[in-house]
Amino acid sequence: MTTPPTTDPATTHDLVERELAPELSEGALALDADVVRSYSADWALFCPADGAVALVRATCVEDVQATLRFASRHGVPVVPQGARSGISGGANAVPGCLLLSVERMNRILDIDVGERTVTVEPGIINQELKNALVPHGLSYPPDPGSVALSSIGGNVATNAGGLCCVKYGVTRDYVRKLVVVLADGTLATLGTATAKGVAGLDLRGLFVGSEGTLGVVVEITLRLVPLLPPPLTAVATFPDERAAAATVSQFMAGGAQPSMLESLDRTTLRLLNEFGDFGLDDQAGAMLLMQSDGAGHAPAALAEVEAFTAAAEANGALDVGFSDDAADSDALVAARRMAQPAYERHAQAHGGGQLLDDVCLPRTRMPEFYDELDRIRAASGLTIAVVAHAGDGNIHPSVFFDASDQAAVDCAEAAFDEIMQLGLGLGGTITGEHGVGYLKRHWLTKELDDGAKALHRAVKGALDPQGILNPGKMFDGL
Amino acid sequence: MTTPPTTDPATTHDLVERELAPELSEGALALDADVVRSYSADWALFCPADGAVALVRATCVEDVQATLRFASRHGVPVVPQGARSGISGGANAVPGCLLLSVERMNRILDIDVGERTVTVEPGIINQELKNALVPHGLSYPPDPGSVALSSIGGNVATNAGGLCCVKYGVTRDYVRKLVVVLADGTLATLGTATAKGVAGLDLRGLFVGSEGTLGVVVEITLRLVPLLPPPLTAVATFPDERAAAATVSQFMAGGAQPSMLESLDRTTLRLLNEFGDFGLDDQAGAMLLMQSDGAGHAPAALAEVEAFTAAAEANGALDVGFSDDAADSDALVAARRMAQPAYERHAQAHGGGQLLDDVCLPRTRMPEFYDELDRIRAASGLTIAVVAHAGDGNIHPSVFFDASDQAAVDCAEAAFDEIMQLGLGLGGTITGEHGVGYLKRHWLTKELDDGAKALHRAVKGALDPQGILNPGKMFDGL
Repeated sequence: MTTPPTTDPATTHDLVERELAPELSEGALALDADVVRSYSADWALFCPADGAVALVRATCVEDVQATLRFASRHGVPVVPQGARSGISGGANAVPGCLLLSVERMNRILDIDVGERTVTVEPGIINQELKNALVPHGLSYPPDPGSVALSSIGGNVATNAGGLCCVKYGVTRDYVRKLVVVLADGTLATLGTATAKGVAGLDLRGLFVGSEGTLGVVVEITLRLVPLLPPPLTAVATFPDERAAAATVSQFMAGGAQPSMLESLDRTTLRLLNEFGDFGLDDQAGAMLLMQSDGAGHAPAALAEVEAFTAAAEANGALDVGFSDDAADSDALVAARRMAQPAYERHAQAHGGGQLLDDVCLPRTRMPEFYDELDRIRAASGLTIAVVAHAGDGNIHPSVFFDASDQAAVDCAEAAFDEIMQLGLGLGGTITGEHGVGYLKRHWLTKELDDGAKALHRAVKGALDPQGILNPGKMFDGL
Repeated sequence: MTTPPTTDPATTHDLVERELAPELSEGALALDADVVRSYSADWALFCPADGAVALVRATCVEDVQATLRFASRHGVPVVPQGARSGISGGANAVPGCLLLSVERMNRILDIDVGERTVTVEPGIINQELKNALVPHGLSYPPDPGSVALSSIGGNVATNAGGLCCVKYGVTRDYVRKLVVVLADGTLATLGTATAKGVAGLDLRGLFVGSEGTLGVVVEITLRLVPLLPPPLTAVATFPDERAAAATVSQFMAGGAQPSMLESLDRTTLRLLNEFGDFGLDDQAGAMLLMQSDGAGHAPAALAEVEAFTAAAEANGALDVGFSDDAADSDALVAARRMAQPAYERHAQAHGGGQLLDDVCLPRTRMPEFYDELDRIRAASGLTIAVVAHAGDGNIHPSVFFDASDQAAVDCAEAAFDEIMQLGLGLGGTITGEHGVGYLKRHWLTKELDDGAKALHRAVKGALDPQGILNPGKMFDGL
């Protein structure tokens, strides 16, 4: 939509040395090609990442402002980066760009126990923040799979989700106030630290999930909740994915409010057992892992376990059990969290390729989804393993393939696309939590209607008239 | 910011008859001056409401589209309206405008029990929606004071709050998908009906709370929760407001998650007893009303009542008690909900004037707020009664005055302003839930920084380049 900036890389390089370098904190600027290259990509496959001219590792707000003022002055593209743990290519370099990393801005600025808020710089890692809150009796719930790696700034940029969303919501639900640097270097405070506030438009929310296309977040005030109570954990195995999905649908329709409801398919169970000593029943066609947190209110959690058991048995469960032993529960959740490493191990041994998809649909439509996914498996001959934040209808199929075989790559990409089309067809979205980035930029145009596209263009044009902020990504097809 | 439209009312009247009338549903257009006048204002005081040329009572999306296409074509201002129960003048007429009411678009389009969502037209009244959900075992929590009068569309336009926000959040937290008509009549679908979704910018959230300045919402998909369990209710009385506020601060800092936490000051207690047979202790300086909902998990609710009792006693409570009798609880909450009618009765008997303010601050700052409010009372000699959604730090002081005495009016307006300044000074906002509208348009400029103002102008300019949507309100001072 916006005209791509056209500054020549060599010219940009000279300008950076002459004009930008003197304005930055010591050590913030890197022009060394190897260093720049090492920051040029996130974890996505099939996304270009070449052509960055320089890397700014900002240590303060002023570094971010100086970089954006410079970029605006010369029409140089800027790619904002957090921990680069995303899997949609949103943090990847584009030709002629400056990489602007905020990973060094990682301080906790304030913990307000009375107000239950924390104010942080964007570079702090999600798990580190969680750890720092424990002594204060507070929790920050959002827990993307990348919780140990991803930064709060990146979580805000992608509106990250996770396992707890089914009860506790996503990143957006916790962001009270943001300080952002706009395309021209201007600083703006959006939202209010108070529990409620309706003074003006919700520009705070607009920046959450904007993937670096509207500005750079430099300070975040999050609301917190009291320490999450230890959960009861229930496990059920099923002959197939459809039965597990039907259980989820029935259980949730009955008024359940689990704090976690994950599903793992047959292939995932097998790959996990191959990866580590998890002792999962890999003869089962699917497994559900349900948690209900109810420390002070164990009766409610027990009732939820009973409702879950009933739903699972009604849908032909092979086995159902539960545990209130924290170590048992932790072991099961740890196994679930090892799915991605297990996938990687499998991929490495089978040609290297894994495409991780991320659709979200009404959970009542999940049984149909799994039927159709079987069709895609059969037609393509591909191994497709599935984990899902099933309570939210958020499904992550991983397509495995031999990356050295172009026909296999094409086949995998086609399956990846078919899965998104299937999600859309069932009333869902092309991405529940991983974002659009580069990987799904052309799919966004299939999801949005003409009016929504026009609105996207209007907002982007107004906030980034030169199109310097993360070009070629989310807005590329709009 | 945007140039106000300048079309002459007589010309507009002719154009409406000639061009717009044939495009509207039968009976949708009203040109009769009395009818138009009867729709020209909401409940705000001191806000102009003259000059509307015509009223469109839309019965379908096409009526809204036709009205906005017409308005765009001729640069005619449009004032979108729901139930006109707002108190900031946001729905008031402006000179030369078309009033565009969606009150007749009030159908429930779909209740999806499995997905726990409901899709409605904007005109449905909040309480009517709640009632319709009960047989399905579902709740829509947001409960503004106007719950019996205000429409869901208006709740969305103002991001309405209420008593349950302290646990259940505000309107925005429940909006999954919106269908909106843009300034030029284009239809756009924003967001997704699924539990999670990050495909593109959060334009859905941008429209929530935009007070009719960006477009007109014509369809709303809301997430729901299982029927809220019956709560335990605790009441405590205190010698003064400061002690009640300190109790709130201490109770919440201890990790409490009440489903309601309201405070009433001495004057409110007195006015309520004058208004009805509520039997409240009006010798007390303040009262707190706390609910903890825990049907299946009564132990947690009981623990919360105990924590509340301890905090109240530590802060010098005169009396603390609790009830698990639904009728008792309902009576107490009903008394709280009668505060506004009791205020109106008092105002009518004392010169007619009541200015209802709405600031939200960190709840830890509430004791200071009440100290300063006493100073404002003493300096002005005015009667100021206060109710507060205390758990959220959201305070509603009502300033009473003789509306026939200009000096008294000036004095009341000055106190109203001082209260907002006090809120800002304590790290709060000028409006927690009532919105900016006309009443607080110049105060918005004091809350937002220059960067946020620039962003507001950019977004408004992009979405409503002619400035026809609700001019002279939220954006008037930006």
